[in-house]
Amino acid sequence: MSTEFELIEAFLKPFPSGRAVRIGPGSDCAALSVSPGMQLVATTDAIVEGVHFDLRRFSPEDVGWKALAVNLSDLAAAGARPRWFLCALAVPRSSRTTQIARRISRGMAPLARQSGCALVGGNVTRASEWSVTITALGEARRPLSRDGARPGDALAVVGSLGDAAAGLRPDPAPAAARAQRRPKPLVREGLLAARYASAAIDVSDGFLQDLGHLCNESGVGAIVECTSLPLGSAARRLHDGLDLALSGGEDYALLLSIPRRNLQALRKRIRLAEVGRMVRGRDIQLTELGQPRPLPRRTGFDHLE
Amino acid sequence: MSTEFELIEAFLKPFPSGRAVRIGPGSDCAALSVSPGMQLVATTDAIVEGVHFDLRRFSPEDVGWKALAVNLSDLAAAGARPRWFLCALAVPRSSRTTQIARRISRGMAPLARQSGCALVGGNVTRASEWSVTITALGEARRPLSRDGARPGDALAVVGSLGDAAAGLRPDPAPAAARAQRRPKPLVREGLLAARYASAAIDVSDGFLQDLGHLCNESGVGAIVECTSLPLGSAARRLHDGLDLALSGGEDYALLLSIPRRNLQALRKRIRLAEVGRMVRGRDIQLTELGQPRPLPRRTGFDHLE
Repeated sequence: MSTEFELIEAFLKPFPSGRAVRIGPGSDCAALSVSPGMQLVATTDAIVEGVHFDLRRFSPEDVGWKALAVNLSDLAAAGARPRWFLCALAVPRSSRTTQIARRISRGMAPLARQSGCALVGGNVTRASEWSVTITALGEARRPLSRDGARPGDALAVVGSLGDAAAGLRPDPAPAAARAQRRPKPLVREGLLAARYASAAIDVSDGFLQDLGHLCNESGVGAIVECTSLPLGSAARRLHDGLDLALSGGEDYALLLSIPRRNLQALRKRIRLAEVGRMVRGRDIQLTELGQPRPLPRRTGFDHLE
Repeated sequence: MSTEFELIEAFLKPFPSGRAVRIGPGSDCAALSVSPGMQLVATTDAIVEGVHFDLRRFSPEDVGWKALAVNLSDLAAAGARPRWFLCALAVPRSSRTTQIARRISRGMAPLARQSGCALVGGNVTRASEWSVTITALGEARRPLSRDGARPGDALAVVGSLGDAAAGLRPDPAPAAARAQRRPKPLVREGLLAARYASAAIDVSDGFLQDLGHLCNESGVGAIVECTSLPLGSAARRLHDGLDLALSGGEDYALLLSIPRRNLQALRKRIRLAEVGRMVRGRDIQLTELGQPRPLPRRTGFDHLE
């Protein structure tokens, strides 16, 4: 087992230093300059060995990528530009600790670079299993939230559904394995959506569950046409692909409520699937070619189950 | 085992909603307004069952208090005013989960209130043991860092040393148990120090180790007079109290490097112990009534040991 400071040094190596950071990782605190006129947007999310990943199926690089990706997806849903992140690592006792930590950071650093998000602080502690808890900080002039959807808005999905859940099955198709291990946060799409959408959420817990959050917070219902849902290429080939798309979770697609007058303008800028509409009331109704379809029994993911 | 949403609801209950928060906990992200002219100061720290606490000696309320306190202490060392925090909770499977989470938040909320620090986001996940990972956000016009100490500066300690480590022993004195379980982050003192000190760090890993960080980052050495160290009331009564003060850790005192010309002004505003001075070179030297004293073999805490 190497010392804390060797591990921190190994972890930090693949990361360039950030812009607008006066005091960076290795110090008690980071000091950051938020751009004038911008709101600071903050989110935190953890991934834990044995719950969110398994080192027999995930490489340490996958773990690093995904830990940051799930946080960037939350920023994307708020229409925020990623700027900085802090990373709290929990590591079990093992002779390979520093090697695994180095590989986690090698998986995380390319996504950080692509997204313009600088590592500015962190923590390392011992624990029974590996976990990576990230707090991501971004900026937005007018952050999107879950509570702005109005009856009459179009309901749209950016990205695809079902593949990440398919990636948990034995011998998944390559697209499904990739969706599960290397989800792509839709940062650019979120930034554009912020100019046109009335509300947004990312699909982390399952389409129906996350749509439920959006509806609850906005005080609206929704009608969803199942044949319009953008199933991923792997889910499309499974007999229960639609179930995975509705309830599978971890897709990190964006769910947008879009006032009708903005729909065409946004369509020109990003690829989206119009899957239904927001309505008065509180209920979510599914249709299949316009005919009512029952809701599935399991509608999403409980992090404590 | 209750559901994720019941647990989140129970956890959030004791917290009032924050100022300058547009979207709060329960949403994907918090949207926050940093005050004009201020730097954002960010830090993250975790406490883990079996590593930092043991539920046979710590009440869940103690865990909640301490998890926030150790983060506020980092903000204090940066001279930052606490504003917001995010809390990522890891919970083991147990029938008492929601009850324990509720008690953790009941211990955390009073400190959040006292410190003017609002809970604005979080995460909950299953894990093998309890852990609380907090990211605290503050504001400072001119954050203190570890790298500004200069030869000739006075070295001072705010707060006391050794009691927290004494609190880990069997049958600790009440002051020692309190220092271990309910450390007081020196927020007000840090805010004042920011106006007078050249560098600061909080004593989390042990006086000598944290002084070592300060010296390394600043490129200076230090001479410390042991009889001037402000031992806590419990450590003072132990035959090895000085060793605990030098190497024990978790005191959450502040270590300040102060230009001579500022010393009197700061002394008038906060209680501090002048314990030595910063010198050229890289070494830390101990003296006892002016005579050289050898450094202890163990100088601090390794989070992976």
